[in-house]
Amino acid sequence: MGNTFGRLFRVTTFGESHGPVVGAVVDGCPPRIPLGEEDIQADLDRRRPGREPLATPRSEEDRVRILSGVFEGRTLGTPILLQVENQDARPQDYDLLREVFRPSHGDFTWQARFGIRDHRGGGRASARETVGRVAAGAVARRLLDLAWGVEILAWVGQVHDLVARVDPEGLTREQVEATPVRCPDLKVAEKMQARIRQVREEGDSLGGVVEVLVRGVPAGWGAPVFGKLQAELGAALLGLPAARGFEIGSGFSAVGMRGSEHNDLFCWEDGRLRTRTNRSGGVQAGISNGEDLRVRVAFKPVPTLGQPLEAVDHLGRPVLLQPGGRHDACVAPRAVPVVEAMVALVLADHGLLRLALSPPAHS
Amino acid sequence: MGNTFGRLFRVTTFGESHGPVVGAVVDGCPPRIPLGEEDIQADLDRRRPGREPLATPRSEEDRVRILSGVFEGRTLGTPILLQVENQDARPQDYDLLREVFRPSHGDFTWQARFGIRDHRGGGRASARETVGRVAAGAVARRLLDLAWGVEILAWVGQVHDLVARVDPEGLTREQVEATPVRCPDLKVAEKMQARIRQVREEGDSLGGVVEVLVRGVPAGWGAPVFGKLQAELGAALLGLPAARGFEIGSGFSAVGMRGSEHNDLFCWEDGRLRTRTNRSGGVQAGISNGEDLRVRVAFKPVPTLGQPLEAVDHLGRPVLLQPGGRHDACVAPRAVPVVEAMVALVLADHGLLRLALSPPAHS
Amino acid sequence: MGNTFGRLFRVTTFGESHGPVVGAVVDGCPPRIPLGEEDIQADLDRRRPGREPLATPRSEEDRVRILSGVFEGRTLGTPILLQVENQDARPQDYDLLREVFRPSHGDFTWQARFGIRDHRGGGRASARETVGRVAAGAVARRLLDLAWGVEILAWVGQVHDLVARVDPEGLTREQVEATPVRCPDLKVAEKMQARIRQVREEGDSLGGVVEVLVRGVPAGWGAPVFGKLQAELGAALLGLPAARGFEIGSGFSAVGMRGSEHNDLFCWEDGRLRTRTNRSGGVQAGISNGEDLRVRVAFKPVPTLGQPLEAVDHLGRPVLLQPGGRHDACVAPRAVPVVEAMVALVLADHGLLRLALSPPAHS
Amino acid sequence: MGNTFGRLFRVTTFGESHGPVVGAVVDGCPPRIPLGEEDIQADLDRRRPGREPLATPRSEEDRVRILSGVFEGRTLGTPILLQVENQDARPQDYDLLREVFRPSHGDFTWQARFGIRDHRGGGRASARETVGRVAAGAVARRLLDLAWGVEILAWVGQVHDLVARVDPEGLTREQVEATPVRCPDLKVAEKMQARIRQVREEGDSLGGVVEVLVRGVPAGWGAPVFGKLQAELGAALLGLPAARGFEIGSGFSAVGMRGSEHNDLFCWEDGRLRTRTNRSGGVQAGISNGEDLRVRVAFKPVPTLGQPLEAVDHLGRPVLLQPGGRHDACVAPRAVPVVEAMVALVLADHGLLRLALSPPAHS
Repeated sequence: MGNTFGRLFRVTTFGESHGPVVGAVVDGCPPRIPLGEEDIQADLDRRRPGREPLATPRSEEDRVRILSGVFEGRTLGTPILLQVENQDARPQDYDLLREVFRPSHGDFTWQARFGIRDHRGGGRASARETVGRVAAGAVARRLLDLAWGVEILAWVGQVHDLVARVDPEGLTREQVEATPVRCPDLKVAEKMQARIRQVREEGDSLGGVVEVLVRGVPAGWGAPVFGKLQAELGAALLGLPAARGFEIGSGFSAVGMRGSEHNDLFCWEDGRLRTRTNRSGGVQAGISNGEDLRVRVAFKPVPTLGQPLEAVDHLGRPVLLQPGGRHDACVAPRAVPVVEAMVALVLADHGLLRLALSPPAHS
Repeated sequence: MGNTFGRLFRVTTFGESHGPVVGAVVDGCPPRIPLGEEDIQADLDRRRPGREPLATPRSEEDRVRILSGVFEGRTLGTPILLQVENQDARPQDYDLLREVFRPSHGDFTWQARFGIRDHRGGGRASARETVGRVAAGAVARRLLDLAWGVEILAWVGQVHDLVARVDPEGLTREQVEATPVRCPDLKVAEKMQARIRQVREEGDSLGGVVEVLVRGVPAGWGAPVFGKLQAELGAALLGLPAARGFEIGSGFSAVGMRGSEHNDLFCWEDGRLRTRTNRSGGVQAGISNGEDLRVRVAFKPVPTLGQPLEAVDHLGRPVLLQPGGRHDACVAPRAVPVVEAMVALVLADHGLLRLALSPPAHS
Repeated sequence: MGNTFGRLFRVTTFGESHGPVVGAVVDGCPPRIPLGEEDIQADLDRRRPGREPLATPRSEEDRVRILSGVFEGRTLGTPILLQVENQDARPQDYDLLREVFRPSHGDFTWQARFGIRDHRGGGRASARETVGRVAAGAVARRLLDLAWGVEILAWVGQVHDLVARVDPEGLTREQVEATPVRCPDLKVAEKMQARIRQVREEGDSLGGVVEVLVRGVPAGWGAPVFGKLQAELGAALLGLPAARGFEIGSGFSAVGMRGSEHNDLFCWEDGRLRTRTNRSGGVQAGISNGEDLRVRVAFKPVPTLGQPLEAVDHLGRPVLLQPGGRHDACVAPRAVPVVEAMVALVLADHGLLRLALSPPAHS
Repeated sequence: MGNTFGRLFRVTTFGESHGPVVGAVVDGCPPRIPLGEEDIQADLDRRRPGREPLATPRSEEDRVRILSGVFEGRTLGTPILLQVENQDARPQDYDLLREVFRPSHGDFTWQARFGIRDHRGGGRASARETVGRVAAGAVARRLLDLAWGVEILAWVGQVHDLVARVDPEGLTREQVEATPVRCPDLKVAEKMQARIRQVREEGDSLGGVVEVLVRGVPAGWGAPVFGKLQAELGAALLGLPAARGFEIGSGFSAVGMRGSEHNDLFCWEDGRLRTRTNRSGGVQAGISNGEDLRVRVAFKPVPTLGQPLEAVDHLGRPVLLQPGGRHDACVAPRAVPVVEAMVALVLADHGLLRLALSPPAHS
């Protein structure tokens, strides 16, 4: 349980951080979608660390291979196996961690749940598990683009107390990717980078916020009651490593508002019913209304630091861990493509679910 | 799709606001749990409106009936049908809404998804759907209490800009229920009530935050990757009517922190490994660590107001709706038992899932 | 677990034989399907016993009520609650069974699984549970008819050693319903009825076979690997009370054939690719080929007899049970509408699943 | 959809016959189960063809690799990726099949469903897909053995009209594996082998029956209503390539019996309640009763022959295919380990589901 996501567009990820491979199986992708390894590689490359000074120095190439489900450049409608070899596995680095529980990591809780764990690099609790998500998300994105013209765009909206001002109107991926911190507010981006660099040198880490914009979702996606779009997006994003909070549209700021100022009034525009404001973030009563989807995710400062870490052994005896291994000073920039992938998985599933609502003769 | 929640402890809710009944079927509840209608009625009574001046005047009694799955006072392990009749249905009140889309309601999006809707009182998009959730949650709570001693407690932590200070240590349900606004900070509670009363008189509404505390969840519940406890709690709570945001532990405030201050250091206490602080909100890497669970949900100000509402018809032509029907000035107080119910559903499911991890001979 | 069937068209049945109600919740039925209680009642009436001399004398009327999910005569796309009150419950009849395990009944195994059971009339192990299946199946059938023109027809093909000869070409429901035994071979039907009458008088029971014909399923329904049409039809029908065997197309008789005689050769007919023979029963490699579906189910002789039954108590001590309560001498005739319902549930689910394969832009 | 099997013990298979790999991901296997590649290889070797004269000459070695989910010789509780490379892929052999539909194959129906297919060796409709099932089944079997001592044994019970007489009492795998035809009735086995050899020389094929015996399943596994053990075993086995029929216990022969002779009377033996006969095949009302499980599967004669095959193109124009490629004269012997694997998957799932029924405090 717990390693499969989705109902019709279903993804199962697999692999430990220092095992032979990581990846995903995608079941339920419609047939005849043009798909090549290059489509997936592009997103994996964005996920990859290495664009210093922001990220960890782990230097795998993360070459994806499509091992099933694609034939002569098109999906078959059968399971798509996406696999990436772990090339930079140095398990010996991790021997010290075998009996140790690091604070605010998954070491202790995984042990409590499973009674066994792969202590090397966090095993499957590692952010490396997101390779499979990004690969699968790239397939979902391909489907969303071809079938409905849906476009998903995420960026870093905040690092520590540095808040970007971003106008989503006309925003492009190029603008997001223009800075290593993936923040399209160039002025703030520069400050963010300086802050991250400094904190990294201090061996510390910072929290951040990733914001998401989705264009092109037609009105009528989502489900009422337990399958609400914001609930499924929330689950998808709160399940990312280090995620602590989620908002749609006005989010927590809605608490401080009155209904009379919060309501999104309708207008007729572009030949369809739209809303003048978008405090709902594109979702009303769990179903898309045709406006842009807007969600935000809060990431905590990662607990692995470049300074000694006060850990314990299984009896609670203190163990001081010297810094080593990898360490992202702020996870938000690298989380951007992972966030996009998860949003794509949710939307691909709901796009397909929507098709099942209208059988031929009576639609 | 979308009306069933859970994997092992599964709940399907049914019923339109102004149809004959609302309720739920619970499938997967273990057998031999003592259960009576009074166990469920207690929670339904807490959900019921009517404690003026905070809530809507709809006056149904909401008597639950257990129509299957319980025999001689104990669960059978078969589906438990929980049903409540709608007594106060006055469909004629709603004839005006047949062709009208109210702003920030589900009218338009349900129409976009289904091409048909029950316009009376929101149909199934009504908060009345939560009757089924609360009833099912009461069963889950009974299981959690008997099998693991888990206790779930929610309260209103904020209304508009009024923030309560609540010490969860020793907090009891009695303290929460002591005020109509369900805020155990009595001073702030009084202000909240005054504010709500005033805004209600102005025909407006306010947002609020519900906070949750769960005691007694053992370390090792939850699942890695896609079934993380915070993801499932998030989905459960973001799916509630008017919910806009979710946080676990430090939540969005973690963004402004450094890793060195955010990490929860371990200590040995009460004969087990605990943490000195609880910024993780009881969950690390998606799995419970034995500390109290702490989550928060943001609710927007409800869009139904006691003043004329600028709605439209299906062509976008303006329709001014005069106030009428029901109207909660702030949804948070009534959401408290619903929030508790959803948390109970998530935890009952995870409690049962945990059992499947340890087959007899090798555990 | 175990009380829900289907993936997109999902049915949960509920209710004990002598509890207040039995019925089903249907989730996932597309919206805007015309549906009234009379559509469902017709199938329930066919399921009802009482057409002597073949069936049990239990005389409930089994009036179905639609309590949610239908508005102004059309489905809403929300859960449809179908409920039937148990009117003829005489629990006192069953006090003797409280501590007793009858042979080849579910008494012992339910006790082994749940540690508790409703001993009255078999509780939920009773054939009365199929009321919910038939009610839900009627909804599925309505959908199949309106959206794809699919028609499902079952009949009794064998009772004991009496084998009917039935030409499916042009066969109608009227022909099936023309005899109480529901066998359209009138000559054999008469013999079957005489045999059943005689065996009933002897206080014994007989096995039987129900055959199914489905017309109008388009080529391309079903799923490869684990969701094969014959696997899902098999599961649906093997899950019926007293079912012991299942065949599709040539079934067990294929064992005695050679490939060269078994292969269904293609031909071009009616402007499409068809097969000259139909040994495959309309399914090749798990997917429909556009020919009629043909399956068969074997039912054992029911274990409740009109003669003393050698039962035991929980320590294995013999208990001789005197006949009483109800007793079908042959379950096959009454199983006919239940078999049709289960086939309808499988096909409705696969019809909807098929829709999700072809997203708009690339189909 | 359709490539995942199970609820708690979940298997997703992947891979086309002539793609780079085939295999499976197992999610939900409990942690700390000792598992090595050799455990899986043993079953894969039994599945492999090559023991002439019964089987196809395809000569891959089918070496399985465990690529995730196992650490230091034990399962982690995380997804187990089992992968086998396709070594003998000769796609050029299959160019003729690109536009051709062979009779009683999946060519036409896959095209109808997906609008695209991998025509090489049947793609995913090939029996080669069962490599993943056997590999996953080996994991399930390991769990069943260690946790509950469950033992699964299958053999060929019939080929064409040659019926074996097999006493399940004391039957061992060695006895089954003693002959290439996997029939423990040595006299009949010899005749079967002669028949198969002869029919193979004639370029034809034969049907067969595989029988299954499961020892050690405790009373109380399975689920009522839709999750009945026979329904899930039926679905599992009817989903195998070429399967056409399924029986549990007395199966179709029950039709010709009376209830008074069919009932399994109870007795007290070995300190527990048992039945004197086992016509129920170990399952009553969908739940195991502690007796041996007994099921049978009918396989049709495979449609690929060693003689010219009357196929068609997409317009129905005749194409005479010359024999070539591989051809099993009777699929039953090779199906034996696959049948065992599927039974293991069903039982592992139900074993885990059973654990979730008894929460600690009240069990």
